[in-house]
Amino acid sequence: MISELRNILNDSQISTNETILDLHSKDESYHIPSKPDVVVYPETSEQVSAILKFANEHKVPVQPFGMGTSLEGHIIPYDRGITIDFSLMNKIIEIKEKDFLVKIEPGVTRTQLNKELSKYGLFFPVDPGADATLGGMAATNASGTLSVKYGTMRDNVRDMEVVLADGTTIHTGTLAAKSSSGYHLNGIFVGSEGTLGCITELTLKIFGIPEFMSAARATFKTIDDAVEAVVAVLQAGIPIGRIEIVDETSVKQVNHFSESTYEEVPTLFLEFHGNEAGLKQDVAFTKDIFEDFNCLDIQFETDTAARNQLWDARHNLAYAYIHSYPGRKMMVTDVCLPISELAGAIHHARVVIDQLGLPGGITGHVGDGNYHIILMIDMNDPEEIQKSKELNEQIVEYALARGGTCTGEHGVGFGKQKYQEKEHGEALEVMRKIKQVLDPNAILNPNKLLNDKNS
Amino acid sequence: MISELRNILNDSQISTNETILDLHSKDESYHIPSKPDVVVYPETSEQVSAILKFANEHKVPVQPFGMGTSLEGHIIPYDRGITIDFSLMNKIIEIKEKDFLVKIEPGVTRTQLNKELSKYGLFFPVDPGADATLGGMAATNASGTLSVKYGTMRDNVRDMEVVLADGTTIHTGTLAAKSSSGYHLNGIFVGSEGTLGCITELTLKIFGIPEFMSAARATFKTIDDAVEAVVAVLQAGIPIGRIEIVDETSVKQVNHFSESTYEEVPTLFLEFHGNEAGLKQDVAFTKDIFEDFNCLDIQFETDTAARNQLWDARHNLAYAYIHSYPGRKMMVTDVCLPISELAGAIHHARVVIDQLGLPGGITGHVGDGNYHIILMIDMNDPEEIQKSKELNEQIVEYALARGGTCTGEHGVGFGKQKYQEKEHGEALEVMRKIKQVLDPNAILNPNKLLNDKNS
Ligand SMILES: Cc1cc2nc3c(=O)[nH]c(=O)nc-3n(C[C@H](O)[C@H](O)[C@H](O)COP(=O)(O)OP(=O)(O)OC[C@H]3O[C@@H](n4cnc5c(N)ncnc54)[C@H](O)[C@@H]3O)c2cc1C
Ligand SMILES: Cc1cc2nc3c(=O)[nH]c(=O)nc-3n(C[C@H](O)[C@H](O)[C@H](O)COP(=O)(O)OP(=O)(O)OC[C@H]3O[C@@H](n4cnc5c(N)ncnc54)[C@H](O)[C@@H]3O)c2cc1C
Repeated sequence: MISELRNILNDSQISTNETILDLHSKDESYHIPSKPDVVVYPETSEQVSAILKFANEHKVPVQPFGMGTSLEGHIIPYDRGITIDFSLMNKIIEIKEKDFLVKIEPGVTRTQLNKELSKYGLFFPVDPGADATLGGMAATNASGTLSVKYGTMRDNVRDMEVVLADGTTIHTGTLAAKSSSGYHLNGIFVGSEGTLGCITELTLKIFGIPEFMSAARATFKTIDDAVEAVVAVLQAGIPIGRIEIVDETSVKQVNHFSESTYEEVPTLFLEFHGNEAGLKQDVAFTKDIFEDFNCLDIQFETDTAARNQLWDARHNLAYAYIHSYPGRKMMVTDVCLPISELAGAIHHARVVIDQLGLPGGITGHVGDGNYHIILMIDMNDPEEIQKSKELNEQIVEYALARGGTCTGEHGVGFGKQKYQEKEHGEALEVMRKIKQVLDPNAILNPNKLLNDKNS
Repeated sequence: MISELRNILNDSQISTNETILDLHSKDESYHIPSKPDVVVYPETSEQVSAILKFANEHKVPVQPFGMGTSLEGHIIPYDRGITIDFSLMNKIIEIKEKDFLVKIEPGVTRTQLNKELSKYGLFFPVDPGADATLGGMAATNASGTLSVKYGTMRDNVRDMEVVLADGTTIHTGTLAAKSSSGYHLNGIFVGSEGTLGCITELTLKIFGIPEFMSAARATFKTIDDAVEAVVAVLQAGIPIGRIEIVDETSVKQVNHFSESTYEEVPTLFLEFHGNEAGLKQDVAFTKDIFEDFNCLDIQFETDTAARNQLWDARHNLAYAYIHSYPGRKMMVTDVCLPISELAGAIHHARVVIDQLGLPGGITGHVGDGNYHIILMIDMNDPEEIQKSKELNEQIVEYALARGGTCTGEHGVGFGKQKYQEKEHGEALEVMRKIKQVLDPNAILNPNKLLNDKNS
């Protein structure tokens, strides 16, 4: 295999070094690591195509790898084989300012992209809480604090170049803002977690940095009040830029990690975007609504530094937990529900966490109906592992019974396969057929996403 | 066949009456009619499933039919067989006000839906210029004047119940606002034009009627100025509600048909949505921008009646052409381009229309980069038909060469198949594989959308 790969790549693009294999054996979660046989670093889509052609002919498993920050064992090569690391394909190819589009290679990270875009007064709005690659973000349909206004990856991918299992290269879209031509391949390739092809180029929608922004922290007596306040703001049609919940436990973590002194009570972090006059009116209306839900206090972060501090603290929340619990591993639930069910769901979550006696905090993109329980588990304590799995199951059951999904943004990977049958029913068979016809030798990220009957 | 269908449906749900067959043999365009063998009117998804099971076993072509307003021969059963007319499945099943969702049967029309929603202060934003069914609109990924702000059908379908070729019933989504679970089937089933399954239920996003709306007509010296003004407004990031172009020729048609007295020069119809203060600021900014592009005049329609008249006139534009040219048939181009290419494209379109000496007007959803040339052609004049086809081809070529699509909203149907290879390249093969695996007997709307190699 290595000698075949040497026909395609330079020696420096191929590694079997144990440290490198180890780095590609795990993500940032509790899933059990497993090493690939080899890690390759292509620099062009032609090289990716040649690697896949070879792998397909020899039925070698292929594992696309972005930054390895996914949370459900997505990138763990349980079947060994080749891991394709996209870190050398990290060029920003073209900023099409007038079209609000940017064309990039898949290994570009979101902070790298936004640093470049900021020079033009532009930004890309999908902001997961890790510095992920755009290829990985597209492959998981990532979202973030701004998705309530700007949508998820799926809403922001205009076109992708994808190399299929047999080495064929396709485009999944065009540069037009809408199209009714042919089947919408963007739709299925975004979120396909490397199981249908390797993304080798992306054209993304970008946005002008809003004329005015105003960030705030609103504190509430109970988490129920906070969630109900969010629902009321959404139902009033206020075009909020961000609205995030951080429970008492999580505010403590934030203060500890980010050296802030936020009051340790259930809190909403929010942001308004717009023109000056419209924004003022939105803020006033939101304040009125919050009063109806026993808002204790609302603090506006007026200067840019305080605003940035607020969002950095939010973005670093998961890392705050990780740092507070050295030696433990992170398990994160990720259900998303219709907004009318959110308050009930979060109330239920709190009850179950307390019943099971687990140390866990609640946070999340509540504007989308998506919340997380962050658990730090001791992988040497079988009872704790068992309890955490039980919690996950109860949370997912509750969401599925109410029209929700088992994963709002993290994806299925290895860990959420067991819920696929229940969530999708007969539709899972349609997904399996699509996988089968596009990757007949099942080389692409095998035994992930689909709960394959044979796995 | 008829006797088999009688095991599934009442006699009143089955028709071979010539007038009925004739009504289902044609759309509202220039495409040559052709009758089905039988038209059926199911009332439940179980009946649709039984019809498909039967058709699949006997390899009988099946043609889903909404309102028959599509423009590319979509619903013409060139292979005869069974046309499934969804007009009896027209119930609004549930309005979930708190979730901003509505669940409906596929035969509900957009005016029927909006009439009901308006009782709750809500509306559904996708508004093609015909009173189409929501099933047909989802199947073509329709859009309209409001799509620049609210998106297309694909953006507004949360979930669908779909009966597949073999009679299996699936759901393509959940009720959650976002999901990373499994392949995104909503994405490919929306816009699949009845070639992958029959939509038997839809859950759609709905919106609160905006607090404030303000409509306007802005007139320009040249169409180039008007288009460049649109591009400038978009690039300034003004969150416009609607922005439509209506050229000189088309304003004449509007005045004639709608008894209006609008000045017959290139005109933008626009609308602002928002809160009172924000809207005022948007309007002022837009006026400033328009001045830079030689705007002759901007007239605000302040009262509701005048505002409604404006949008009715716009919606009836294609019908205005049809009424002005009795005996002729309509051919409409439908390209969509990246916004930076729009001014060049519309300029080019005007030149080609004049060169070919065809009577045609330009209109369109320019905020999306989508415009139409409406041609009324004499189907007894081979030269005119030839010229119209040539025009269509030149317009599509121009768009594809600039990263655009051959159809922004009408879909492929029969008429746009010839451009599929050029637009999608190798991706067309992926689409064919998906079709093949989901409809192996090719019974669903055969020989449409895919430019099947065997057709
Ligand atoms: C602290 C923390 C906070 C997080 N917060 C969020 C959040 O707010 N929102 C959110 O959505 N996620 C969040 N995540 C999860 C994670 O950041 C996202 O899933 C992210 O999209 C993964 O990107 P990556 O580059 O790390 O991809 P990887 O983890 O390397 O890969 C993810 C998947 O994509 C595939 N893939 C990668 N690159 C390609 C490619 N070029 N072509 C095809 N397939 C490819 C892989 O095979 C794998 O299946 C968080 C994770 C952590 C650790
Ligand atoms: C005057 C005029 C103006 C128009 N303006 C616009 C416009 O602004 N924007 C726009 O997008 N379009 C426009 N159109 C085109 C047309 O209105 C749209 O394509 C519309 O979505 C068609 O809906 P329908 O119910 O008439 O569907 P039909 O024409 O009956 O069917 C369209 C396609 O959908 C399939 N289909 C129908 N129902 C189902 C179902 N339940 N399950 C599966 N497949 C189904 C059919 O097989 C066919 O392929 C216009 C048409 C006219 C005549």
